[in-house]
Amino acid sequence: MATDPVLPPLERLSRVRVVLHSPRHPGNIGAAARAMKTMGLSRLCLVTPERFPDDEAYRRASGARDLIDRVGLYPDLASAVAGCVVAVAVAARPRDHAPVSMPPRMLMPRLLDLAVHGEVALVFGNETNGLARVDVNRCDFLVRIPTGGEYGSLNLGAAVQVLCYELRMAALAAAGEDGARPDDSLDSPLATHEQVVQLLDHAERTLVALDFLVPGRPSRLMERIARLARKARLEQEEVNILRGVLAAAEAARAASGDTPSR
Amino acid sequence: MATDPVLPPLERLSRVRVVLHSPRHPGNIGAAARAMKTMGLSRLCLVTPERFPDDEAYRRASGARDLIDRVGLYPDLASAVAGCVVAVAVAARPRDHAPVSMPPRMLMPRLLDLAVHGEVALVFGNETNGLARVDVNRCDFLVRIPTGGEYGSLNLGAAVQVLCYELRMAALAAAGEDGARPDDSLDSPLATHEQVVQLLDHAERTLVALDFLVPGRPSRLMERIARLARKARLEQEEVNILRGVLAAAEAARAASGDTPSR
Repeated sequence: MATDPVLPPLERLSRVRVVLHSPRHPGNIGAAARAMKTMGLSRLCLVTPERFPDDEAYRRASGARDLIDRVGLYPDLASAVAGCVVAVAVAARPRDHAPVSMPPRMLMPRLLDLAVHGEVALVFGNETNGLARVDVNRCDFLVRIPTGGEYGSLNLGAAVQVLCYELRMAALAAAGEDGARPDDSLDSPLATHEQVVQLLDHAERTLVALDFLVPGRPSRLMERIARLARKARLEQEEVNILRGVLAAAEAARAASGDTPSR
Repeated sequence: MATDPVLPPLERLSRVRVVLHSPRHPGNIGAAARAMKTMGLSRLCLVTPERFPDDEAYRRASGARDLIDRVGLYPDLASAVAGCVVAVAVAARPRDHAPVSMPPRMLMPRLLDLAVHGEVALVFGNETNGLARVDVNRCDFLVRIPTGGEYGSLNLGAAVQVLCYELRMAALAAAGEDGARPDDSLDSPLATHEQVVQLLDHAERTLVALDFLVPGRPSRLMERIARLARKARLEQEEVNILRGVLAAAEAARAASGDTPSR
């Protein structure tokens, strides 16, 4: 395998083989392909699938049919992971004397780091029995998705989705886009601290004009309003809208003369 | 809703409603139920499903049929999220003028915190069109699963799986089991530093006895072996096995007389 120490994290995803060992349902093959493609993975390998090719795999792959077209078919696990620098077995339950087991959030970033040095493999067992012991022991690590106590059996396609998602999150984190920040979907820039203070001053003047606030008399009302405004993480456009509303209220009050009702 | 400030994080999962709005395929309803149960969620709500009840939903639910039996059916989103302290819309793409959007890893821990105060809802749109604008705007936040650029359309059941997984990871983290530590699957306790040093001393004596190492002559061999032993994070039982092997090698050497071959 070529060693490329500067391969960008998101491009390392293309070095991850997803190996399905003896899958029974072609629908799950399609679901795995779709799960992979949505997360930026592309190399699907099948070891002795029960039914393949099959229309159901295409149907469930939806927009990831190209991955089905390029599936690698192998007679055994050894040939499916040949050339990989590391292979990780996906296990539904802990195994005695097996490779070291780690949760996905710990192991997927390491797997991505190892992909700098060559291809890596995630190996999934079949829907009914999982991986045989001999296949687990061929792998270098074991990953186990944390599940609830009562029922811990994820659908095969769903397990592929979770691990591909963790791989993508690891790649985003390594690329400095850590997935733990709000999306950049603000309609306008965030208001500055000063703009919020000016809004609150404006609000206070308006509330006084409306005789809702008595100037000079202690009130917790403005504190509550300030708390609300700050918690809302206001955008500049929102500040403008609110100041427009305040101005309209002031104008209405001025037009209505000076007869406060309270 | 009852407020219980000490509700343990994992129990908060039972306060999360998963709402599927107008799902088309009963298979996805079953997949959602299975995804939920594997992560410890239990409240599945359907708004005007196209086909329900349906055998396919039961079949795909697998071990989560009880969630299908207890599904809540609603005529519209308002009634499905009635009484919730917060509702989160799941969006495949960014929306203008919509509620604030955050990635799952940021929003799911917050959702779990809010579940201390009452029920919360995750709202999924239908497979073809997602959520209507009016339904998105009824929600308090928007969550968007990060996807690859080329194809970002997760299967509905797979999206439910990812968000339920993030909720469970948030609950585990809040409960102090953070999912970023190795599973406690060691066959025996980890070897101490001293035990590893003793093993290395033993190995050196044995290699000298085998004439593999010349005492007093500088060699990088022992450094390489030490590096390997430390990297392997040896368990006590493994140290015992290796020392047994060394002892057997020494005994064989002693029995063979004193004719070194190198």
